[in-house]
Amino acid sequence: TLPNATLNSTSRDPPTPSTDHRTLAQSHELFITSQYSPGSPLFLPNGAAIFNKLQSFLRAQYPQFGFTEVVTPTIYKKSLWEISGHWDNYAEDMFEVKGRGASGQMTNAEIGQDEEFGLKPMNCPGHCLIFASKIRSYRDLPIRYADFSALHRNEISGALSGLTRVRRFHQDDAHIFCRPSQILDEIKSTLDFVGMVYDTFGLGPYKLLLSTRPADHFIGAIEDWNKAEKQLKSALDHSGRDWSISEGDGAFYGPKIDIILKDSHGKEHQTATIQLDFQLPQRFKLQYQAAPEDLGTTVSSHEGSRTMLENGYARPVIIHRAILGSLERFMALLIEHYAGIYPFWLSPRPVIIISLNQDPEVLSHIHDLQHQLGGHTRSRLSNGLRSPQPLERVPLTIDADISSRSLGKKIHDAKKLRYNFIIVVGPTEAANGTMKLQMANQPEVTREHAIEVLKTTLDSEGYNAR
Amino acid sequence: TLPNATLNSTSRDPPTPSTDHRTLAQSHELFITSQYSPGSPLFLPNGAAIFNKLQSFLRAQYPQFGFTEVVTPTIYKKSLWEISGHWDNYAEDMFEVKGRGASGQMTNAEIGQDEEFGLKPMNCPGHCLIFASKIRSYRDLPIRYADFSALHRNEISGALSGLTRVRRFHQDDAHIFCRPSQILDEIKSTLDFVGMVYDTFGLGPYKLLLSTRPADHFIGAIEDWNKAEKQLKSALDHSGRDWSISEGDGAFYGPKIDIILKDSHGKEHQTATIQLDFQLPQRFKLQYQAAPEDLGTTVSSHEGSRTMLENGYARPVIIHRAILGSLERFMALLIEHYAGIYPFWLSPRPVIIISLNQDPEVLSHIHDLQHQLGGHTRSRLSNGLRSPQPLERVPLTIDADISSRSLGKKIHDAKKLRYNFIIVVGPTEAANGTMKLQMANQPEVTREHAIEVLKTTLDSEGYNAR
Ligand SMILES: [Zn+2]
Ligand SMILES: [Zn+2]
Repeated sequence: TLPNATLNSTSRDPPTPSTDHRTLAQSHELFITSQYSPGSPLFLPNGAAIFNKLQSFLRAQYPQFGFTEVVTPTIYKKSLWEISGHWDNYAEDMFEVKGRGASGQMTNAEIGQDEEFGLKPMNCPGHCLIFASKIRSYRDLPIRYADFSALHRNEISGALSGLTRVRRFHQDDAHIFCRPSQILDEIKSTLDFVGMVYDTFGLGPYKLLLSTRPADHFIGAIEDWNKAEKQLKSALDHSGRDWSISEGDGAFYGPKIDIILKDSHGKEHQTATIQLDFQLPQRFKLQYQAAPEDLGTTVSSHEGSRTMLENGYARPVIIHRAILGSLERFMALLIEHYAGIYPFWLSPRPVIIISLNQDPEVLSHIHDLQHQLGGHTRSRLSNGLRSPQPLERVPLTIDADISSRSLGKKIHDAKKLRYNFIIVVGPTEAANGTMKLQMANQPEVTREHAIEVLKTTLDSEGYNAR
Repeated sequence: TLPNATLNSTSRDPPTPSTDHRTLAQSHELFITSQYSPGSPLFLPNGAAIFNKLQSFLRAQYPQFGFTEVVTPTIYKKSLWEISGHWDNYAEDMFEVKGRGASGQMTNAEIGQDEEFGLKPMNCPGHCLIFASKIRSYRDLPIRYADFSALHRNEISGALSGLTRVRRFHQDDAHIFCRPSQILDEIKSTLDFVGMVYDTFGLGPYKLLLSTRPADHFIGAIEDWNKAEKQLKSALDHSGRDWSISEGDGAFYGPKIDIILKDSHGKEHQTATIQLDFQLPQRFKLQYQAAPEDLGTTVSSHEGSRTMLENGYARPVIIHRAILGSLERFMALLIEHYAGIYPFWLSPRPVIIISLNQDPEVLSHIHDLQHQLGGHTRSRLSNGLRSPQPLERVPLTIDADISSRSLGKKIHDAKKLRYNFIIVVGPTEAANGTMKLQMANQPEVTREHAIEVLKTTLDSEGYNAR
């Protein structure tokens, strides 16, 4: 029962053996694990490609939903975790950090230089520091900070497994600081975001589950809870999706909405969460210059809030939200969902060029094609250096198999590795400047045509293209 | 004298007061610092925008230089740092990490579950684990792993300052695993990469400084050093840049090339480093299936290398290289270099739209323009949800000032904040669907024209555009 404590809860069910993401990850070289860092997967180039594309995908969506990204520390002094409540309530799950040298930190030292650090399990306290770093007006709200930081939680080593039970993970995390009256619009927009993302991946159906105020132990005024829950219900109705209610199952610091996804095996996964928080703004004494209409309402019955309102300030509400949840866990889900056959835009193996033989002309043509299909500007600057590649291009990886093995064997392997496009180049193609694109009824194409096909596939409508 | 130990050395000179990056960062809201995490800057949205664009810029260049990205752990067990040599040689600079709960780690525990962790100061050991995770052939080399991980080094708190003396930082780090005979091509390519990047930022001139084998204390055979240094000199000659030699100043484990940048005040900054390493491959027992020609050469006089060669394996060389060095320190340099006036592509404030008044039509037109100039696809899917934005677009931030202040005051502020484009919209523009673009002799333009202007500015040739 701590802010956000449930955001990364992972399923304890074992994965279905036939499509276990660990098996697929091994044959497709997505990640490895190491005894030197149990629970911290090492993403190989193919896994890192998927991981980075998931981040890029979310970054591309953020502007229209009003999120801006921040970059925040990995370690904070114990005293910060005491303000947030994590140091005591989350002790089992946290790692502590100390310098080893002359400037080392001591356990239970006074607040200040010699105090030990905690390795962050959540981003919220850092975002509260940023919010509190300047005077905020009601006109500035909502403020929405997104953060892809690495997070650490000390799961016991026996429970660690693949990408689903980890110690190091990343969330597509964000915190919305808003006025109590803005909850409705923020939740509506977040549910839209969830719908768009899950549709893009072809995931679903999912259930929405609202957990409301606990009967006994809760903070704040019942009136504030009722107003907030009314807005949550209204947003859920507006979403047009099925939703149900779990009376009294909210955290003591605020109600929440869980998104529960059903996979192709009928197994349920709790992925995204939208958690309201009345407590963290109190603990960090967050406030904003109130609008006239804010001053007429009690934002919280917390001691001091009356004085705050008299001075013209009101307390914001924090909404913790993650759309994918843990990127690692979501990747495990996607690996099993796609069974290794990724959509073109997400694929770590979008294109391979296979050589028919090892003639120099063939190899040279393949080398040229790799640059052209990869979209590399090959011009040179006046000083002879290569031109920089444009920023806005997401690099397209064009692999090549120029080994001396037979064509049949190479195509067989490329298919097994689930390449989206297989291109074959032999002496004829090298002489004509063409290539064979292995798609139904496309025996021979020019490089311009292949570029066109790849571009169209990568186009904005193409998130669903295989 | 440890692998890579000099990669992030920072200048001890105080910055020139007139353009101190800390002052500019404050007025432009780039980052803040906090007593709760000394030396770990918190990047505000504007600073995070620059930080992310620097990463995107490098990512866009990586494919043509053959780098692939990996994602690696933040903490590793003590026993890994003992293999790499950091635990003893780098003790003062490292943080140790322990679980606080039942699964906590103990100081000096046996290797395994209860052993404490070290917070990583460098990426090299993780990349060695990846290299060693499968059998490598000479045909696979060079293998080049890039990594933007957060790194931590325990600088004493009194020395911490802005983005130049920090405890948490990120490098545009990479490790090249290659055959000894491939050093020349790798160094040539790396020097090309350095030249292209520094030209793009308009930084320079810079000096190249080669540090060679120490007279007494060094590992490996003199013959191997001579061959490597000959390749480094040849690559330096090929670069067409001035270079000089610092005899005997190399590390005991390999020669290096430093890039020393002169800023506009004549101050020198050591930024990029290219460090050869004969030692880390030994410590991690790295090997590859040798080519016939590799078997005729001694790769290293290290004990066991003869047996390795007899079994058909050879030892790779590692090249540690960073082009920008510490991204934080490079940002500090850029902030002072540009004095807050960033090129359009890198700018955290590329465009602002200013309202002439607060009429609903004006505000609505501004809202539309923000989406259109920002390049947002506004179509809806059949289920009513917004279409996902294309992956390949780097979001363009379009700010708006719709406050009730005077136009003069708003333009003045926008100029002070160094917006690249200022657009004014009043009732006339709202009625005509146009806007006033504040550029010389461009009184009134259509939104299509403005999009065209912005697109051209963002184009691949546009890295230098202001
Ligand atoms: Zn949170
Ligand atoms: Zn290194």
